[in-house]
Amino acid sequence: MATVSPTPLLKDELDIVIPTIRNLDFLEMWRPFFQPYHLIIVQDGDPTKTIKVPEGFDYELYNRNDINRILGPKASCISFKDSACRCFGYMVSKKKYIYTIDDDCFVAKDPSGKDINALEQHIQNLLSPSTPFFFNTLYDPYRSGADFVRGYPFSLREGVPTAVSHGLWLNIPDYDAPTQLVKPLERNTRYVDAIMTIPKGTLFPMCGMNLAFNRELIGPAMYFGLMGDGQPIGRYDDMWAGWCTKVICDHLGWGVKTGLPYIWHSKASNPFVNLKKEYKGIYWQEELIPFFQSVALPKDCTTVQKCYIEISKQVKAKLGKVDDYFNKLADAMVTWIEAWDELNPSGDLSAKIPNGATK
Amino acid sequence: MATVSPTPLLKDELDIVIPTIRNLDFLEMWRPFFQPYHLIIVQDGDPTKTIKVPEGFDYELYNRNDINRILGPKASCISFKDSACRCFGYMVSKKKYIYTIDDDCFVAKDPSGKDINALEQHIQNLLSPSTPFFFNTLYDPYRSGADFVRGYPFSLREGVPTAVSHGLWLNIPDYDAPTQLVKPLERNTRYVDAIMTIPKGTLFPMCGMNLAFNRELIGPAMYFGLMGDGQPIGRYDDMWAGWCTKVICDHLGWGVKTGLPYIWHSKASNPFVNLKKEYKGIYWQEELIPFFQSVALPKDCTTVQKCYIEISKQVKAKLGKVDDYFNKLADAMVTWIEAWDELNPSGDLSAKIPNGATK
Repeated sequence: MATVSPTPLLKDELDIVIPTIRNLDFLEMWRPFFQPYHLIIVQDGDPTKTIKVPEGFDYELYNRNDINRILGPKASCISFKDSACRCFGYMVSKKKYIYTIDDDCFVAKDPSGKDINALEQHIQNLLSPSTPFFFNTLYDPYRSGADFVRGYPFSLREGVPTAVSHGLWLNIPDYDAPTQLVKPLERNTRYVDAIMTIPKGTLFPMCGMNLAFNRELIGPAMYFGLMGDGQPIGRYDDMWAGWCTKVICDHLGWGVKTGLPYIWHSKASNPFVNLKKEYKGIYWQEELIPFFQSVALPKDCTTVQKCYIEISKQVKAKLGKVDDYFNKLADAMVTWIEAWDELNPSGDLSAKIPNGATK
Repeated sequence: MATVSPTPLLKDELDIVIPTIRNLDFLEMWRPFFQPYHLIIVQDGDPTKTIKVPEGFDYELYNRNDINRILGPKASCISFKDSACRCFGYMVSKKKYIYTIDDDCFVAKDPSGKDINALEQHIQNLLSPSTPFFFNTLYDPYRSGADFVRGYPFSLREGVPTAVSHGLWLNIPDYDAPTQLVKPLERNTRYVDAIMTIPKGTLFPMCGMNLAFNRELIGPAMYFGLMGDGQPIGRYDDMWAGWCTKVICDHLGWGVKTGLPYIWHSKASNPFVNLKKEYKGIYWQEELIPFFQSVALPKDCTTVQKCYIEISKQVKAKLGKVDDYFNKLADAMVTWIEAWDELNPSGDLSAKIPNGATK
C-alpha cells in the first residue's frame, strides 16, 4: 500500500474495463492500485456462469444477457466469445477516462525492482500533451528531466490533447501466431524508459491489453469490431480500433502516446488457435494498411461520430470487395455509433440507461 | 581494450570526422574504440595553430588553407569558425560510412556501468534495416530480443536500407539557448534502451554531435550549410542537414534511426553566445518546418544530388522572401553539390583529389 498516493488520480473520473471468462483472481495483485477505482467487468461467453470478483472492489458486471437487454437488436455490433466485447464497457461507462486491461496481465517491476503502478502512468500520459507534428529525440518532452531539444519549433511546444495512452508488456510480447510459432521462447525483458507520441500520419499496431484513453475525446472510435463467434477473424479487434482511432486523432489534432507503463504479461495464448483466428487478417491486413494510410476525412467531419461514419462508408466502398465481411463490419460500425449515441446523449451523461448487475 | 571485438566492424569502410579548434586530448578516452579507424580532422579557425593529436591514431587533418586549396572558389560553401565545417570531411572521405563526433563528447556508461562503444552501436544501426512506413511498438524489430508485434504488416517486415543513425547524449542535453537559460541545471540522466526509425513524413531535429550515416547513400545531402563567420546564424547547421536529409530519405525510401548509442556530453556551451547565434534561426525555423513538411520532390529526382538541387531551387523560391540569407544558402547548396561531384566522380572513388596533411 505504501506505493499508492493518498488521493488516487482521477478516482471519480476513470473506469477500469475488464473483459473476462474467468474468476478475477488477478485483481488481488492489482488491489493497491485498482481498489479506489470503479470496475466495469464484461463477462464473455456463457452468461449463466458466475464470475467471482475478489472482495472489496467496486464494480458493475455485464454478461451477454445484459448486453442484449440494454442494446436490443443493436447488440449485434458487440462481439461474442472474443475479448472484443470489452468495448461494450466503454459504451456504458459514465466516466471521462477508460483504462482497459486483460485478466492475464500482472503488475510488472521497474528496473529498480519497484512495482509499477501502470494506471498512474497512463493517467500521467493522458493528462500531459502530445506532440504529433514533430519528433522530439529525447522522447516525451513533458516528463520530468526532459524537454524539447534544440531545433524543435517553439510554436509546437504547447502540444495537443492526448487521446490515447498505449502501454507495453514485459515477459510475453504481443506477437502474432507466425512469430509465436517461430520464436516460442522469446520474452520481452527490455525495459525501455520512454513515452513518445506516434507522429501524425503514422499508423501503429494498438494492443488492447494495457490501454487507456480519454473516452470523452475519442470514445466513439474505440469500437473493437466484429470478432469471435460467427466471424471469420479474431485478434484484430484492437488493431481495427487503433487504425480508426489514429486516423481520427490525426484528423482532429489529438495525440496518441505509446511506451510506459509496462504490465507483466503472464501467459502466451495458443499459437495454433491464434493462427486459425488470424490467418485471414494477416492477408487482409495488407489491404487494410494502405486503406487506412489513404483515408481522407473531409473538413465537415468535426466530431468523432462523423469521422467514424465517414470511415464506415469508405470501408464499404473500398474494402467490401476484399471480402463481404467488411460490408458487415461497416454496418456494425454504424450500429455501434447509433448505440453509443443512444447510451450517451450529448450533454446529459446522467440520463444513461445501463443497468447491469451492480454490486 | 577488453571491450573491443577482435576485428572492428567496417574498419576499412568508415571514417571518423571530427571538427575542432583544440588539441584532441578527448581521443584518449575513445582510444579503445576509435584507434582501429581512420580519422578525418577538420581544423576550424586559425590555420597556423597546431592541433595535437594523441599518438597512435591514423588521421588526415585539413585546415582552412587546405580547404581553400582543394576546393578553390567553391570553398565558399564551407563554413568558417563554426563546426559546420565538418561537412568538408564528409566530402573528402573515400569511405562508405561516416561517424562524426564533437570533441567535447566522452564515452558514456550504460546502466550496468559498462563503457558504451558508440561507434559499434552506430554501425549496427546502419547495417540493420529501418521501418519508416509503420510504427513498431517494441521499437527496433531487428534488435536481439525484439521483433515485429502483432498487427505489423508482413509485407513491410523486410524494411529498407538505413541511411542515418542519430545517437543521443547523456549529461548535457542538446537544448537551445532559451531552454539552457531557463533550465541551466538540467541534466539528461535517463538511459532509454531503444533505437527506432523516425516514420516517413515526420521531421526531427538532427544533432551533429554523435551522428553516423551511409555516405554512399546519403552523403551529398549532409551539407551543414552556411554558419559562423560572416553569416547571420549558427547552431542550425545540423538541423538544416537533418531536414534536407529526412525529406530526401523519405523520397528515396531510406530510413533514419534515432536512439542508442549515447555519448557523454561533458560541457554546456555558453547560452548567451548561443542565443546570439540562434535567435534568427528560432524565428526563421517557424517558416522552415512548414516549408520542409511541404517539399514535394518530383519522380525524376532519382539521385540524392538531383533531390538536393531541387530542394535548393525551392529554398530560393519559397524561403528567399523570408531573408536574403536563404538565397545565399540556396546558391551554396548548389556549390556544395558541384564540389561533391568533383571530389567524388561517380564510379571512380580512387580518382579523388584530396590532399591534406596526412600523417
